Amino acid sequence: MGKGILERLDEGVIIGDGGFVVALEKRGYVQAGPWTPEAVIEHPEAVLELHREFLRAGSDVMQCFTFYASEDKLTVRGNKAGRHGSTNINEAACLLAREVANEGDALIAGGMSQTPTYAEGGSKEAVQEHFQKQADAFTKCGVDFLICEYFEHAEEACWAVEICKKTGLAVAATLCINKEGDVDGVPTSECAVRLANAGADIIGINCNFDPDTVLAGVREMKRGLEEAGLKRHLITQPLGYRTPDANKHGFVDIPEFPFAMEPRTLTRWDCHRYAREAYDLGVRYIGACCGFEPYHVRAIAEELVTERGGKLPLASEKHEMWGGGLKLHTKPWVRARASREYWENLRPATGRPECPAYSKPSSHDITD
Amino acid sequence: MGKGILERLDEGVIIGDGGFVVALEKRGYVQAGPWTPEAVIEHPEAVLELHREFLRAGSDVMQCFTFYASEDKLTVRGNKAGRHGSTNINEAACLLAREVANEGDALIAGGMSQTPTYAEGGSKEAVQEHFQKQADAFTKCGVDFLICEYFEHAEEACWAVEICKKTGLAVAATLCINKEGDVDGVPTSECAVRLANAGADIIGINCNFDPDTVLAGVREMKRGLEEAGLKRHLITQPLGYRTPDANKHGFVDIPEFPFAMEPRTLTRWDCHRYAREAYDLGVRYIGACCGFEPYHVRAIAEELVTERGGKLPLASEKHEMWGGGLKLHTKPWVRARASREYWENLRPATGRPECPAYSKPSSHDITD
Amino acid sequence: MGKGILERLDEGVIIGDGGFVVALEKRGYVQAGPWTPEAVIEHPEAVLELHREFLRAGSDVMQCFTFYASEDKLTVRGNKAGRHGSTNINEAACLLAREVANEGDALIAGGMSQTPTYAEGGSKEAVQEHFQKQADAFTKCGVDFLICEYFEHAEEACWAVEICKKTGLAVAATLCINKEGDVDGVPTSECAVRLANAGADIIGINCNFDPDTVLAGVREMKRGLEEAGLKRHLITQPLGYRTPDANKHGFVDIPEFPFAMEPRTLTRWDCHRYAREAYDLGVRYIGACCGFEPYHVRAIAEELVTERGGKLPLASEKHEMWGGGLKLHTKPWVRARASREYWENLRPATGRPECPAYSKPSSHDITD
Amino acid sequence: MGKGILERLDEGVIIGDGGFVVALEKRGYVQAGPWTPEAVIEHPEAVLELHREFLRAGSDVMQCFTFYASEDKLTVRGNKAGRHGSTNINEAACLLAREVANEGDALIAGGMSQTPTYAEGGSKEAVQEHFQKQADAFTKCGVDFLICEYFEHAEEACWAVEICKKTGLAVAATLCINKEGDVDGVPTSECAVRLANAGADIIGINCNFDPDTVLAGVREMKRGLEEAGLKRHLITQPLGYRTPDANKHGFVDIPEFPFAMEPRTLTRWDCHRYAREAYDLGVRYIGACCGFEPYHVRAIAEELVTERGGKLPLASEKHEMWGGGLKLHTKPWVRARASREYWENLRPATGRPECPAYSKPSSHDITD
Repeated sequence: MGKGILERLDEGVIIGDGGFVVALEKRGYVQAGPWTPEAVIEHPEAVLELHREFLRAGSDVMQCFTFYASEDKLTVRGNKAGRHGSTNINEAACLLAREVANEGDALIAGGMSQTPTYAEGGSKEAVQEHFQKQADAFTKCGVDFLICEYFEHAEEACWAVEICKKTGLAVAATLCINKEGDVDGVPTSECAVRLANAGADIIGINCNFDPDTVLAGVREMKRGLEEAGLKRHLITQPLGYRTPDANKHGFVDIPEFPFAMEPRTLTRWDCHRYAREAYDLGVRYIGACCGFEPYHVRAIAEELVTERGGKLPLASEKHEMWGGGLKLHTKPWVRARASREYWENLRPATGRPECPAYSKPSSHDITD
Repeated sequence: MGKGILERLDEGVIIGDGGFVVALEKRGYVQAGPWTPEAVIEHPEAVLELHREFLRAGSDVMQCFTFYASEDKLTVRGNKAGRHGSTNINEAACLLAREVANEGDALIAGGMSQTPTYAEGGSKEAVQEHFQKQADAFTKCGVDFLICEYFEHAEEACWAVEICKKTGLAVAATLCINKEGDVDGVPTSECAVRLANAGADIIGINCNFDPDTVLAGVREMKRGLEEAGLKRHLITQPLGYRTPDANKHGFVDIPEFPFAMEPRTLTRWDCHRYAREAYDLGVRYIGACCGFEPYHVRAIAEELVTERGGKLPLASEKHEMWGGGLKLHTKPWVRARASREYWENLRPATGRPECPAYSKPSSHDITD
Repeated sequence: MGKGILERLDEGVIIGDGGFVVALEKRGYVQAGPWTPEAVIEHPEAVLELHREFLRAGSDVMQCFTFYASEDKLTVRGNKAGRHGSTNINEAACLLAREVANEGDALIAGGMSQTPTYAEGGSKEAVQEHFQKQADAFTKCGVDFLICEYFEHAEEACWAVEICKKTGLAVAATLCINKEGDVDGVPTSECAVRLANAGADIIGINCNFDPDTVLAGVREMKRGLEEAGLKRHLITQPLGYRTPDANKHGFVDIPEFPFAMEPRTLTRWDCHRYAREAYDLGVRYIGACCGFEPYHVRAIAEELVTERGGKLPLASEKHEMWGGGLKLHTKPWVRARASREYWENLRPATGRPECPAYSKPSSHDITD
Repeated sequence: MGKGILERLDEGVIIGDGGFVVALEKRGYVQAGPWTPEAVIEHPEAVLELHREFLRAGSDVMQCFTFYASEDKLTVRGNKAGRHGSTNINEAACLLAREVANEGDALIAGGMSQTPTYAEGGSKEAVQEHFQKQADAFTKCGVDFLICEYFEHAEEACWAVEICKKTGLAVAATLCINKEGDVDGVPTSECAVRLANAGADIIGINCNFDPDTVLAGVREMKRGLEEAGLKRHLITQPLGYRTPDANKHGFVDIPEFPFAMEPRTLTRWDCHRYAREAYDLGVRYIGACCGFEPYHVRAIAEELVTERGGKLPLASEKHEMWGGGLKLHTKPWVRARASREYWENLRPATGRPECPAYSKPSSHDITD
């Protein structure tokens, strides 16, 4: 067996993969609303293809496509995904991730997220029972490490970490919060300390916010860990969308979610900047979440090519750095765009004169 | 054999497929700049997957992925795609399109585009020799009909149509111009008349401009054909981007082309509106070009479900009309977005306060 | 007596004054809605001050502040301005204009506008009776020339011109339309021809639209006059607001009218561009309307300083050309802005990320 | 004598006046760059007119137009204003303010601002000598109270307050900072405490930032004073421009300063919101600075009509609350805008599709 996630992080920088539910919704295999991953059974070749694209783009980790695959989610409000059964879906997801990971040198990770049971006020025992089932499945399937992700409550995340820790695998834990704190008002710096104390090896933020907001939050986490004398790896997995106007609940509250987010989509140059700023902050697990397509991940890998020993991703055979491929274009003024300076300084027009830059998000306090 | 394209157009409305080069560039299989289709040999499973996604989204036509596959383009400026050979690429493309078309009831179309020879002032004979070679290949591979597309000069398009006409297959012809006229100053209405007189059965506009601009242009074509007493089918295959600020050369001259077009990307609701306006104008081949992803095509099919006899595309099993799937969402204020009224009235924020709505396009007169 | 308006136009370029009702509404002397000019009696010192500011800014013409001062307008819907009597208001307005004109070398002009009588379908005789009364008052007060302005119907404007012509004074006539045509569908080029044939000496467009739109319209008028072999002076008096999104009825239909037009306000640099483009088109009466403040008019005068024999307006003693006064600023990076290049290239930020660039105007066909 | 400023603040809410240098620059009497007030001698009628407009708009205080009237400023870099002499200018300014104040029931205030001497590292004695001279002049002219305003250094402001305090007059002190702190890094809450301890009776922020930013800063000041057990009146005098993108040095660093600020101008409805939020925060001296025109001040007075015992300003005779005057408009769809709901919910379009919402401010650390 190759090196594990912690060894790799000690040695350098790791690149995560992008967002499955959003990418596969646009390809026609996932339904927005329930967002469940039955595609692993119904259209496995489409899931394999997306894994492969991320591998080719430079991802070092294949996250098993098990998001929202707990039994209760699969059947909620009449969702037909439930007919496949939670176990079948989770196992199929692991097999697909492993198949592609083995085509390169990638690791696979099992994931768990916040539960309806916690949201409804369930006891620690009841909540941890759910996490235990998922941990058992992932252990059985032989994942390389575990990721507790998309938690709005630091407390619930700590409960998940405790369960994961018992497997003996390395554990990453990411909240979906901004720099202010979790939804219970625990300051972001303090959240990181609690996760560390619960046993998390890799700590950070995922989903819900754009790279700028996620990095500002992880800066707080870093400060908290340092002040507490704790040393952990940092992880960022932000949205592939610009959301400067989001409130504390993130992109779900933005009026454009989920069917009109296009104008907010990151360019590849936004991803270069994200990768650089994350690296400079000391983040060594630089990943991505909803909205990140394979070419966004490739941009991260290209930005960090030197830090990764000169290793370019496979997909860069179709993408010269900084738009260099445009030198082959027929029009001279397009060829003139084949430079880093051009793309770094461009402020892209939106083509939408009737649209504002900021929306007014919904503002509610229900968390789920 | 089933019904041909002209029979189908006589009976109802046909939906085209989306943009291959742009979608596959983002997936890591096509290089921006040369934009050549060597992926049909290097990564055939990725090309099959994209064909399948469009078929599932409702496309009635699979265009063979042969864009810019002429011998001279494949090798220009050191492009490595040339090593596969033009013939191999064209034949592989036809086989992939046919394989997926047969999984449904789709037709396949061979395409040809403007030539360097014409741009460099070559004679009619020299130009038509190129077209003849392509026509021979498509005939050999058994395509169902031919599309002459992406022509900026009506004259060159007419030369292509003449060659295609001799195959006995139905011929569609689309210019990449706006409502003012082609780059030689021939008014758009007159362009349509010339294409009809050259033998084109289906006439319209593709690429270079957004749906609003393309529809304004085809309205002129329709007027020209009617005033000349000519009856032809109309076709529109616009960009999946908003380009109200484009000049007469279209999106290539926009500063954001090709690596920062994200904020201009159409939402699915923009596609609903496009489909309705195209239909109301009398267009019966409603297609798409660069920037259109599978979910954009599905939106066209969903808008026209009644006109197509109630037939929804396969991919609608993962997409309830007008955001209906959000009724399964956990947050009540997101469930409240599950309505046509909500999405039709939303003006999506861009999240980009430092960016303008309009850019200042390059303005040059070289055409290629 | 000095030279009349036609002599001055023959010899060079004339600068009009700015918008009284809008400027005085902001100063607290005019009510938005009725927009009547009772300030000439209630606060004459404020009217004198505004006339003086325009004179100092370079205006060669003082328009008597009699806008909407017909008897029926002053009393409509309970407007209290009626208590002063139409005659008193018109005569007071002329005296104030003359007082300031004599402080320099300016001319004064009486104005008349579209009537409720015409809008309600009144006969030519009935409509012209109104115009005759106004013409009599202006003749009695000794105005230097007459301006028929803010007409949406070319026909009604021609009726006004006919009456004015009988006074023996020079007559300017401006419609408030765009390049398409008047509200009855008479093409803009044809409108100009009809005004010329009715006797107008100076022909153009005022109010309702921004400089770009007004210049596009006057370009049509110029073409029409030339094709008809008619030679007349051209006049433009546009809004001091950017209204690229206006429909054919102009700024009144824009949702921001009249209390949220601020973000659309022209900068002084927009006025430089307007002045240059108007001059280059051949316009020799370059004026202004609602939204133009004294500093906007000064910018016109500064742009045309060479064409006006090197004569700068009085108010330029407090304004060095192209921001030169900033050389006296304490901060070096503000001093660095003291250049033409800086201000000509700046695209000013709006500070309004929650606002769109384009509104959706009301669209109605009632004209009044 | 009537009630002094402190008595009035104890009893209710006081409204300040607007920005003189910016308004008079647009009217042609002040030069941008030096921004000196020689108009009080050169064009006293124009200064009187502006005072009157603010009085009519509801201002309870006439600030003598003496901004930047210290001897060194009047002559800097060749500014011709110096020929009038500092004493003449200061005394003329006081006479004009008193003349108009007596037309109503307003107070007049003398003002002093940061000095070149402090910026250049002068001693406390040297700096206070300048302040003493100004204080002597204001005492001689019989001003009602003093305002130390536009200070970036809390220390210098405290020195000014000390001098002012010795006159026996009430003293207001406003810094031009945001909620972070002054330019030396003293937290904003601490700045307020220092000003209070130096003797200031009324404490707050003026100029440099928009209402949102100023209110956020004064909220910090309020917190600081409360935590220190100090009770003082609060004052806000923000810009009449939207500057969400300003850095800590305020609007001077914004690229649009000072000649392209138009798109940022507040609407009257922005002023309503400002007045309400200031009042709710506990501010009782609600004033204004650069960019506020008379109609902006009237909007403050109209918003607070109930809090001011039902007293509307004189200029409201030409302005029915919430756009009510539009009920007299001829077009029914404009009459439909005569409501609070309409104007409160409108997000005004900018008419500027080629402009961004945010600029990139200059960023320098020189203060002057």
